[in-house]
Amino acid sequence: MSTLLEREIADQGSILRGRAAAGEDAAARAARALGAADHLVLAARGSSDNAARYAQYLLGDALRLEVGLAAPWLYRDLDRAPRLTGAGVIGISQSGQSPDIVAVLAAARAQGRPTVALTNDVGSPLADQADVVVPLLAGPERSVAATKTFLASLHAVAQLVDRLAPDPERARLLAALPDLVDALTARQLDLRGRFDPLLGASLITVAGRGLAFAAAHESALKLRELSGMPAEAFSPADLMHGPLAALGPSGASWLVAPADEDLARIAPRTGTTVVVADRKRPVGAGAVEVMLPTGLPPWLVAILAVIPAQVAGLRLAEARGVDVDRPWGLQKVTLTR
Amino acid sequence: MSTLLEREIADQGSILRGRAAAGEDAAARAARALGAADHLVLAARGSSDNAARYAQYLLGDALRLEVGLAAPWLYRDLDRAPRLTGAGVIGISQSGQSPDIVAVLAAARAQGRPTVALTNDVGSPLADQADVVVPLLAGPERSVAATKTFLASLHAVAQLVDRLAPDPERARLLAALPDLVDALTARQLDLRGRFDPLLGASLITVAGRGLAFAAAHESALKLRELSGMPAEAFSPADLMHGPLAALGPSGASWLVAPADEDLARIAPRTGTTVVVADRKRPVGAGAVEVMLPTGLPPWLVAILAVIPAQVAGLRLAEARGVDVDRPWGLQKVTLTR
Repeated sequence: MSTLLEREIADQGSILRGRAAAGEDAAARAARALGAADHLVLAARGSSDNAARYAQYLLGDALRLEVGLAAPWLYRDLDRAPRLTGAGVIGISQSGQSPDIVAVLAAARAQGRPTVALTNDVGSPLADQADVVVPLLAGPERSVAATKTFLASLHAVAQLVDRLAPDPERARLLAALPDLVDALTARQLDLRGRFDPLLGASLITVAGRGLAFAAAHESALKLRELSGMPAEAFSPADLMHGPLAALGPSGASWLVAPADEDLARIAPRTGTTVVVADRKRPVGAGAVEVMLPTGLPPWLVAILAVIPAQVAGLRLAEARGVDVDRPWGLQKVTLTR
Repeated sequence: MSTLLEREIADQGSILRGRAAAGEDAAARAARALGAADHLVLAARGSSDNAARYAQYLLGDALRLEVGLAAPWLYRDLDRAPRLTGAGVIGISQSGQSPDIVAVLAAARAQGRPTVALTNDVGSPLADQADVVVPLLAGPERSVAATKTFLASLHAVAQLVDRLAPDPERARLLAALPDLVDALTARQLDLRGRFDPLLGASLITVAGRGLAFAAAHESALKLRELSGMPAEAFSPADLMHGPLAALGPSGASWLVAPADEDLARIAPRTGTTVVVADRKRPVGAGAVEVMLPTGLPPWLVAILAVIPAQVAGLRLAEARGVDVDRPWGLQKVTLTR
């Protein structure tokens, strides 16, 4: 394994295994802190924002909790920040350094609202503003593209859900997740050249609905920041509202756990299709089919579905001669508001 | 004027003038219905979702109200929908037909929460679920791309804000808005060929922050669904988190009311730049500069900033031989969840 990125992708199963116990303990404390909240407000950027989307859907689906994603710009001035009556506030940032995400937690704290930070740096400014810090425990992430910290964030969210509404089957699957991730990353990293059909694509349009929506967003971000190719994500419903117009034979679609109607309406519009699913789907000739383990619930499929996109981003970047550990001059921490 | 779309763009000033009085009355009723809510949850799709983004920023900035955008998928089953404790719920849909947006209001109503519908059809299923209906009064919109209903939605949001926190200066500017829109649409429609430099772009990346964020999203949607060219929108902060990697000389940037740092960091990455701003900006040679009226507050600039993108979408579509009133086989109402 020649790159930090490839090693960090391969390490993800171990990371989840390693954080299981301490993560559960932190999740229990976070659940206590957030227990009295009517609704949640989440603040994040980049990959962490995709983890926040996952939390929005999983907490909403499993716990009937209403979760909103904060517009950090509104929190730039502590005295004029939105009133967070009834809200619990969660900030997600692998570095814990983003000033605009720190500002959301600072506003919540100034208003006496419970705050939780999901971060890989328990000494960060974000952690300083949190009543409870949930450590990602992913170890130093040296590659610019977030991979293991992202999966650790989803793991932390799933642990939190299981603390807020314990369920033996979910707990069993959470315990099995590290092995599932190990097997999937190993298999994906072994298969070379499988994503080459994407190389000529003018645009990669990723679609996913429900719990797969966050996976679609993270897939697009990983494909894009690594390969430098344009990639984007939509829910199928939003795609139908106009953006479909720009899909064409020079582009590719990447469908995450698609419904039959998504396959019928989106795939035929593009020249190349990738289908990431946990069961055999009626894909057209020439489509790239990525099989996930079968028989798992959607919240778990959504976690696993990100891995093929991490690997595809890596392989496309390698094929395009990109320095995958520091692609396109991007920086690890964006200190912008 | 040869197309319905061009006529509907040109009509926007009249539409706002025509809905001013009845809209204020409806805004007063909506403000009473929502007055006791701790926070708001908004549900919308497509262009209406961009109006919801505008509401999120304007209500947050002017009233310190926390506004979340609902994930409609979570509301597909009335009995399992998120609990909306403390929330007021607003649905925005020009047609009022989208079943998933109707479902959000139905869930709110079943939970005894106040509901408001912003819609162009007061007899629609969405209106049926609302305690207060705020009519867009835009007249039948025959072109597939939403233009006058979008501006009417922003107008309705601004009227609602002014009812929740009356301000004489805002009220004066709201009264002046129809004339400003008339002047701007006429000027934009007169200038032909100005957006031709965008025609070869492989990707149009629109960026806007704060109140201009919603205008950036609507600009990208209008450019894309009309021309069929790939277009996308970001806040500058999110763009820096990775997606910047896909910007290159074959692409174009479209900057809405940019800060100096946005001009410095985004524009040089792309081959073509359009700057839409209310004051002279240091744009590079060859950039297309679109001047908006000066001396207006950001909430009003954000409304006006959409108009150049509507016209650019129209002109690019014409240049590409698209049927602008029914581009790309898109449908007016998307009956998908």
